Amino acid sequence: MKAYDVVVIGGGPAGSITAGTAVSYYPDKSVLLVKDHKQGMVPCGIPYTFHDIDVDGNIVKPKGKPPFDVLVDTAESLDLESRRIKLAGGEELEYQRLVLATGSTPKVPGWLPGRDLEGVFYVEKSVPSLRKVNEMVAGRKRVVIIGGGFIGIEVAEQLRKDGHEVTVVELLPHVLATAFDDEFCVEAEEILAGMGVELVTGARVTEIIEGEPLAVKLEDGRELPCDAVGLSVGYAPNSKLGVDAGMKTGPYGALAVDEYMRTSSPGVFAVGDCCERVHFATRRPVPVMLASTSTAEARLAGANLFELKISKSVTGTIAIFSTAFGGRTFAAAGITEQEAAREGFELVTAEAVSPDHHPGTLPGTVKQKVKLIAMRASGTILGAQASGASSVGELINMLGLAIQHKLTVSDLLTSQIGTHPLLTAPPTTYPVTKAAEQIVKRTVCA
Amino acid sequence: MKAYDVVVIGGGPAGSITAGTAVSYYPDKSVLLVKDHKQGMVPCGIPYTFHDIDVDGNIVKPKGKPPFDVLVDTAESLDLESRRIKLAGGEELEYQRLVLATGSTPKVPGWLPGRDLEGVFYVEKSVPSLRKVNEMVAGRKRVVIIGGGFIGIEVAEQLRKDGHEVTVVELLPHVLATAFDDEFCVEAEEILAGMGVELVTGARVTEIIEGEPLAVKLEDGRELPCDAVGLSVGYAPNSKLGVDAGMKTGPYGALAVDEYMRTSSPGVFAVGDCCERVHFATRRPVPVMLASTSTAEARLAGANLFELKISKSVTGTIAIFSTAFGGRTFAAAGITEQEAAREGFELVTAEAVSPDHHPGTLPGTVKQKVKLIAMRASGTILGAQASGASSVGELINMLGLAIQHKLTVSDLLTSQIGTHPLLTAPPTTYPVTKAAEQIVKRTVCA
Repeated sequence: MKAYDVVVIGGGPAGSITAGTAVSYYPDKSVLLVKDHKQGMVPCGIPYTFHDIDVDGNIVKPKGKPPFDVLVDTAESLDLESRRIKLAGGEELEYQRLVLATGSTPKVPGWLPGRDLEGVFYVEKSVPSLRKVNEMVAGRKRVVIIGGGFIGIEVAEQLRKDGHEVTVVELLPHVLATAFDDEFCVEAEEILAGMGVELVTGARVTEIIEGEPLAVKLEDGRELPCDAVGLSVGYAPNSKLGVDAGMKTGPYGALAVDEYMRTSSPGVFAVGDCCERVHFATRRPVPVMLASTSTAEARLAGANLFELKISKSVTGTIAIFSTAFGGRTFAAAGITEQEAAREGFELVTAEAVSPDHHPGTLPGTVKQKVKLIAMRASGTILGAQASGASSVGELINMLGLAIQHKLTVSDLLTSQIGTHPLLTAPPTTYPVTKAAEQIVKRTVCA
Repeated sequence: MKAYDVVVIGGGPAGSITAGTAVSYYPDKSVLLVKDHKQGMVPCGIPYTFHDIDVDGNIVKPKGKPPFDVLVDTAESLDLESRRIKLAGGEELEYQRLVLATGSTPKVPGWLPGRDLEGVFYVEKSVPSLRKVNEMVAGRKRVVIIGGGFIGIEVAEQLRKDGHEVTVVELLPHVLATAFDDEFCVEAEEILAGMGVELVTGARVTEIIEGEPLAVKLEDGRELPCDAVGLSVGYAPNSKLGVDAGMKTGPYGALAVDEYMRTSSPGVFAVGDCCERVHFATRRPVPVMLASTSTAEARLAGANLFELKISKSVTGTIAIFSTAFGGRTFAAAGITEQEAAREGFELVTAEAVSPDHHPGTLPGTVKQKVKLIAMRASGTILGAQASGASSVGELINMLGLAIQHKLTVSDLLTSQIGTHPLLTAPPTTYPVTKAAEQIVKRTVCA
């Protein structure tokens, strides 16, 4: 039986960053990464394999030998008492520290008739299954995507670019509605419609009907004939390995962890989509599943495996989303106005729009829109949303940082920024500053 | 004699934002803006009038009537005792609050023979002079720019794009050397050289020699023949109006102000390039002249004219620069490593490089480089530099915010970020996080 100081289970971003971080903080410890598949991939790049790149272009090409051992095998069971792992290949491993980074898999709606028909696909995070899905969909003209979240929309856009007829069906009144307030969702829907993606929102799917063609049946009786159906209704944490061994889980079935990513079992950490996350503002469990969140957890766990060296400056999980389609970027950080209102926050919000170059006569200028959501009395920023050109992808990280560090609208208003004609909105109408100013004025002059 | 509650002198970004802010916080007060020229312009857009846009495209087109009165005239003198302003047009104005926003003008090197020759130009911030310079330069093939700061480089790039032969002469060992450390300067120089801009660094100009052609003479005896010479050796504060009236100035001749932008004279505020700035880290006077800094001051002054309503969350001035040429963006916030070392800070720095899309096979992927400069013991971030695609223009604002709010490298390391294949570096190698991590590791493992 092999023994390691550290065994990490899971070859995604969370697992590999934890293993690498462990080596660099604890160079004398032996570290093993166990992963199911030889080939890793960039999970966020998966939608783009439907057009912009091919599957091989999305495979992670290791730069030289990793600084830790790697074993391609599947962990079958854990014995937390004796600190042992049983592998599908028959081997056993002994560990001092175990890190579960087993990720998430697409939710399969067990209640949906037709979910397993030929032509129905899920966006799984493995190279073989992605290859299969790509090949299957390539020959089918009409595709219905069930679920208008980020993955659903990105896959829809790529399939459309690839020449398919694409329809997205969303249960909520708008696509992307968990990350954005209505006004941004509407803007996104207009862009998707402009690309020829058909949107059916506020619609419940009741069945996928077998036949040639297939059909997606809605609660109101409508049937959408199609040649393939993509199911993109969220991801569920892969916590079974831990659960079977007796580990504690949270309300949505992910492994419970503390602020240092320690689970309830001594010596066992969990990171990434398989571990429970708590919303930074509502303090409720929140199934955010983002590689950026996972890698932040991985860096923390890796550093803290044998000694608690680093504490988070932020308690709780903040989702920072960004995406781009039809040449427009949408990004959000923190809580939406609608969700915050439901939670009972007393809010004040503001939106500002500006050209994103200055003067606006410069080639390539587009409008940039920023919305801020703040607590009325303290001015604490709880959420931000933005749309514009690709620079919005980093602009949201500034707002994400502000939210995490509990800055107020007055902090944002008086913070100095950098502007440049070719790169940003003008200093006179920089929309982050202008939105913050509107909120401050409204509060001061109320 | 006309009397106003508020008189603002200066029609640049600082003046107009102060006037607008004053109206919105104090709707019952009468506000007058006095400006020298009818037509305003986007100051940062001036270099781009040499190629990307024309002068008219850079003129600020007012959207409707401003919410304050405007008078085109020049303030000749102030009587601070009686609170009166004498205008060149002969009129007198009375004020309750006066805001000086008189800006800056290009430094004219009085010691330089030939500085007034036909064919020698300065980058002045007025429409008529810019029009004249543009016309003059258009017909001249070989242009030497003296001064390799931001303005000098941007004008050089534009003239090159316009078909001129361009040489930049810089006194310091590198161009852009006050904002960037050597490694970024060298990268910038390579890009400029690749565009065909000739760079002569570490060279002192001693004379501009009259003749056809003109020639720029260097201390080492070299002569650079040319048809036009641009002088871009910094800007000096226009503080004369205040100084003549007895107002206090700081070490570099700008008007002394406190944290609320109040000058030494009761009822008188100063904002923008004409007022003194104190460096956030060294606490020394620092002649940063940026519209983004000026507008932040203007918003503060406008809100605080009659009551102190808003305090800065950051004391001191932080320069956040960005620019782009040859398709590459360079940006910096805070202090450089070289300047911080000279000042006596105990430093630790790190640099990280990553593709700015993920996977890196996505079209349009370029390398993004980030450097962080932090205080060794506390981890406080003092400076940041970055190069990459245009997204770096907003990325630097995240780092600027971190510096202003005294975040540490550990804060950056554990902060959650948003990443997206088409928009940012991957979460696994996001260079801000990676540079922060290197510093933390080096400190922990030292």
